[in-house]
Amino acid sequence: MFLDTMVGMPYTGRIFPVNPKADQINNLTCYPDVSSLPEVPDLAVILLPKDFVLQSVQDLAARGVQRIIVISAGFRETGTPGTELEHKLLQLVETNHLRMIGPNCMGMFNTHPDVMLNATFAPAQPWPGHVGFISQSGALGVAILEFSKSLQLGFSIFVSTGNKADISEAELLEYLDQDDNTTVITLYQEGIDRPAEFRKACANIVSHKPILSLKAGRTSSGHRAASSHTGALAADEVITDAFLRQCGIIRCQTLQEFIDAALAFSRQSLPAGNRLAIITNSGGPAILASDALEKSGLQLASLQDGTIEQLRRILPAEAACNNPVDMIASAIHDTYKNVYTIVEKDSNVDIVLVIIVKPPTATSPEKIIEELAPTIQASSKPFFLVLMAASTDQSEFKLCHKYSIPVFSYPESAVAAIGKMWNYQQIKKQFSAVSPTCQPDRKQIDRNGLFDQASYAEIAKRCSAYQLPLAPYILTHELPDCIEFHKRFGRVVMKIANPQVIHKSDAGLVFLNLSDPGTITQAYNQLIDRASALLPSGVSPSILIQQMVPAGVELVLGYKYDPLYGDILMLGIGGILVELYKDVVFRVLPVNTQEIKNMISEVKGHSLLTAYRRLPAFDLEKLVQIIDRFSRLVTDSTDIVEMDLNPLIWSSNQPSPVIVDCRMTVQNPK
Amino acid sequence: MFLDTMVGMPYTGRIFPVNPKADQINNLTCYPDVSSLPEVPDLAVILLPKDFVLQSVQDLAARGVQRIIVISAGFRETGTPGTELEHKLLQLVETNHLRMIGPNCMGMFNTHPDVMLNATFAPAQPWPGHVGFISQSGALGVAILEFSKSLQLGFSIFVSTGNKADISEAELLEYLDQDDNTTVITLYQEGIDRPAEFRKACANIVSHKPILSLKAGRTSSGHRAASSHTGALAADEVITDAFLRQCGIIRCQTLQEFIDAALAFSRQSLPAGNRLAIITNSGGPAILASDALEKSGLQLASLQDGTIEQLRRILPAEAACNNPVDMIASAIHDTYKNVYTIVEKDSNVDIVLVIIVKPPTATSPEKIIEELAPTIQASSKPFFLVLMAASTDQSEFKLCHKYSIPVFSYPESAVAAIGKMWNYQQIKKQFSAVSPTCQPDRKQIDRNGLFDQASYAEIAKRCSAYQLPLAPYILTHELPDCIEFHKRFGRVVMKIANPQVIHKSDAGLVFLNLSDPGTITQAYNQLIDRASALLPSGVSPSILIQQMVPAGVELVLGYKYDPLYGDILMLGIGGILVELYKDVVFRVLPVNTQEIKNMISEVKGHSLLTAYRRLPAFDLEKLVQIIDRFSRLVTDSTDIVEMDLNPLIWSSNQPSPVIVDCRMTVQNPK
Repeated sequence: MFLDTMVGMPYTGRIFPVNPKADQINNLTCYPDVSSLPEVPDLAVILLPKDFVLQSVQDLAARGVQRIIVISAGFRETGTPGTELEHKLLQLVETNHLRMIGPNCMGMFNTHPDVMLNATFAPAQPWPGHVGFISQSGALGVAILEFSKSLQLGFSIFVSTGNKADISEAELLEYLDQDDNTTVITLYQEGIDRPAEFRKACANIVSHKPILSLKAGRTSSGHRAASSHTGALAADEVITDAFLRQCGIIRCQTLQEFIDAALAFSRQSLPAGNRLAIITNSGGPAILASDALEKSGLQLASLQDGTIEQLRRILPAEAACNNPVDMIASAIHDTYKNVYTIVEKDSNVDIVLVIIVKPPTATSPEKIIEELAPTIQASSKPFFLVLMAASTDQSEFKLCHKYSIPVFSYPESAVAAIGKMWNYQQIKKQFSAVSPTCQPDRKQIDRNGLFDQASYAEIAKRCSAYQLPLAPYILTHELPDCIEFHKRFGRVVMKIANPQVIHKSDAGLVFLNLSDPGTITQAYNQLIDRASALLPSGVSPSILIQQMVPAGVELVLGYKYDPLYGDILMLGIGGILVELYKDVVFRVLPVNTQEIKNMISEVKGHSLLTAYRRLPAFDLEKLVQIIDRFSRLVTDSTDIVEMDLNPLIWSSNQPSPVIVDCRMTVQNPK
Repeated sequence: MFLDTMVGMPYTGRIFPVNPKADQINNLTCYPDVSSLPEVPDLAVILLPKDFVLQSVQDLAARGVQRIIVISAGFRETGTPGTELEHKLLQLVETNHLRMIGPNCMGMFNTHPDVMLNATFAPAQPWPGHVGFISQSGALGVAILEFSKSLQLGFSIFVSTGNKADISEAELLEYLDQDDNTTVITLYQEGIDRPAEFRKACANIVSHKPILSLKAGRTSSGHRAASSHTGALAADEVITDAFLRQCGIIRCQTLQEFIDAALAFSRQSLPAGNRLAIITNSGGPAILASDALEKSGLQLASLQDGTIEQLRRILPAEAACNNPVDMIASAIHDTYKNVYTIVEKDSNVDIVLVIIVKPPTATSPEKIIEELAPTIQASSKPFFLVLMAASTDQSEFKLCHKYSIPVFSYPESAVAAIGKMWNYQQIKKQFSAVSPTCQPDRKQIDRNGLFDQASYAEIAKRCSAYQLPLAPYILTHELPDCIEFHKRFGRVVMKIANPQVIHKSDAGLVFLNLSDPGTITQAYNQLIDRASALLPSGVSPSILIQQMVPAGVELVLGYKYDPLYGDILMLGIGGILVELYKDVVFRVLPVNTQEIKNMISEVKGHSLLTAYRRLPAFDLEKLVQIIDRFSRLVTDSTDIVEMDLNPLIWSSNQPSPVIVDCRMTVQNPK
């Protein structure tokens, strides 16, 4: 079967089947073993039962082969014995300086005219083109190749990664980056391995070549119950999303979006702007396309008066000459060509979308495409087609492939794909301007280890070391200290500081806005009484007395160590709203100051900090500094697992936000 | 052309072409005029230039014809002269007791074996089936019929509504409701006319027949600048969405969703629950399907131990026997059948989704479908198929049509369509339990008229009449009144009440939390000074002094008169958060108390009112009463255009929320 596929594509090199039981397979001389091969192959593909794989690798190494693909399954994916076998395989690969794709994969193909190698089980031969495709699921790879036939979506290189024992996704990305025949890289991912390496590879690529990802497996795996807001809100899915964005990857939400986007990127150049003109022979689909624009970051181009004038001269009275240009149902191929030629020249137009609904019998979609093609190819503006009238033999799709026209069945699908190209245009700029900051995960936190809630004294010590502004406070168990503190700082807050006590407000262990010695004394007595009842015997109550911070914008700044991605930073609107509106954004650390600024502007409630309702805006530089210092604190401290500064209150008359409450979970060294 | 189409379908009745210039058309005797017809037709279709339409209608009426379709364009859609012509046409129709579809439409067809009439310009003959389709765009109707060919989606009745001069969408809905051959009604809408009539028709239908709508035209038209939060947030799109939900309509976001849902509804019965089992020969697509479940309101069924046991016995060791059941790539038609038979019997399973990725050469999708079909047809549980390996002749789609199996190309599309069926199952219950409340719009607000901001005294008078709880207050311009008020009510708020002054807080015209005569005097003096500078000369400052309401949950309750939908109610989280998080929900009035309760629970921040952070929950009955009274106030008062109660503060120690600030825009009677 495998050889059938390989022979089915006109491979430009020589093929040497190896099997002791045959002299010939598919008219090719078959060799009994690797040592009897007439020359050293560039690549060996192993399709043996798992127990024969190691010997075969040894033989190949002895014969001087350096690159192998192991299709065979039965390794890490099957449990402990398989994992051991894979480990031995990898050792063999490494000691012999081989490089390996797999094991447990579907192989790879390359459609470049100089190569034409199909080393996969794919039942159909791939359509040649410029989409590079790295797939974690071999079967899904096959399914997408099947689809691509009907859409005539062409691929340059396909690799099924399998268990990624040796060659990683990041290395394959770099390989596709160097391949000139690949203009867009696509990934199907179920999990992300070695994120730091992956991110570095992406960051180097996306400045000049787009990467699309279909990331599956959104259901969150059961994690240790989180003890911070950051922990609770940092669901796998949310972090993955943040991570992929930091990689500069365009994430597709569905398989169809993924295929549509690959088609668009592989056939047209990037738009210079986001102003789209629609030319149609029916109003309805144009309205549907217009409706979809905003969500995709695009806008309807305002045609210039001259353009509208020219259109009016050639179109019937019932036609709409502004954008969308509705030529009405009578439009034939000439009409399409003439209207396109006029609209394409308008300097207010960056992108042209043409819609064809079943045209009159005097013409056909093929005729329209043939008529348009020369002008499209001469234009620097990207062109997209929505064809709602394909014939049953789908001849129009073949024609669109010939002329490199991305063609879609639905108006909304076309707009979504165009939106991704515009999105990439911005990513490209961003990644060209900033060199990526990546670092390997340095923490060694044992997920099954013991964790402690740090005391306020401990948190305060660490915050001070990084100049993080805590509200003025003392920790004490003496009333006179409290009175003394009040005399110095005015209105105060008193609460129990022992980390064993949670939900302090609900337990009546927080007293706000105390303004005289009488109420302070009262609060002190109640705190001591109530806390004594709650604390384990032998633990004496510790009272935190803080200066009362005036009401203001309440922020949350949080950190969580993630076993996969490493250090995760969270910023958002805090206080009681944090769980309610989840108005928080995430980043995988490290982040530079530009990224910190982006984070601030992504928080919906950032308008509370800027020019909201004519209040004086805050100096956001101060907040950037605090976030930066907090990031250093949490990455430098190898024992911090989770940390919340919440709320971090910024009162309108204060120069900088102040930390009013905080929690910190640390690894227990025991 | 039109006659070609009609003759192309085996119409069971007689056809009489009428044209003075021919004796025969398409081998049919052609009559010179209506009066010479040999019998009275049941239906007349008019395809004349617009200037001949009226005479023709007169002739038809004289001949005794009662039902007509006017295809001809050139009426209301073309401007003033066309509108006048349409008006005359309608008068003619009414005085002669005719009923008319159109003008400016594409006609209609009916595929029932007893009828078989295709009176449209559709280039292709429709596929018979059970989807009824009412389309505002004739061309989009044609486009969808074209698509439906490749999917083999069958239609019962199609009507292009055109200008809806006589027969409305609501009447067509009622007609499709009575048609037993139609099991699902679909609508393509660009605008909604006569909403009260439409809503009433829907409410009567959706208790037993589903209605799907693709509503296009989302871009908001330029409205008069809103002077209330309600006005600003009540974008056309948001109201339309609320309205369609109140109608019990399932709204589709894209054309593809619309077609997918029509296919699902027309081929399978409704699921009894939302627990879905997935059977697949490839992991990837099953993961994509699982990822999409939550968004669609579905969940993965937990297979019973017995089921898993049985599966383990028949599947290879590498297969996954829990849900999704991954039979791996070697599965053939027998495997599909056996696994389906086991899974279908599991009482934890309500719905079965089968995925086929290119199967081994020993089988084919056709064989799998043929093998599955008898068991599917014997099962009461709805069945759906994702086929990622269709052959180029699409023979599998024909087979799926034969066995009434909804088939999809993408896993996510299938899940979205199934989710809509489950959604409808709930709508059905809801609309069976509650009789709909609808009323025609009674207000006569002139959108171009003059509007006034009502004074606080006026608002207070109206609120009191409906027992809406304003915070205790007086309006005065004398300092002693303020001091007196403070003595009675304690802490107070003072602000300028003149409606001419907006952004009071920003202008320093609000003083909060005043607790002694000294600060009250100070505030009084500043208010008078600052207001005098702002107010037009001759207008004396009016001071509103209110009891200070303790901090609490801030709500907004708003109203807006909408020229199309009539009375719109808004409820949400108020104060400064209203514009920020837009956590508001809308309803077209009237609403009953159950709907008011639904509104409260749809506000995300409703958890602030219920069991948030262990605080005692509020008695929501009080809020329901206030919303109900407010609804009556705004609908009874024919001059109110917009009204905001914002904030409506509910302090945790108060039995009921209190109105702290309000705005009201009324029509100026001049």
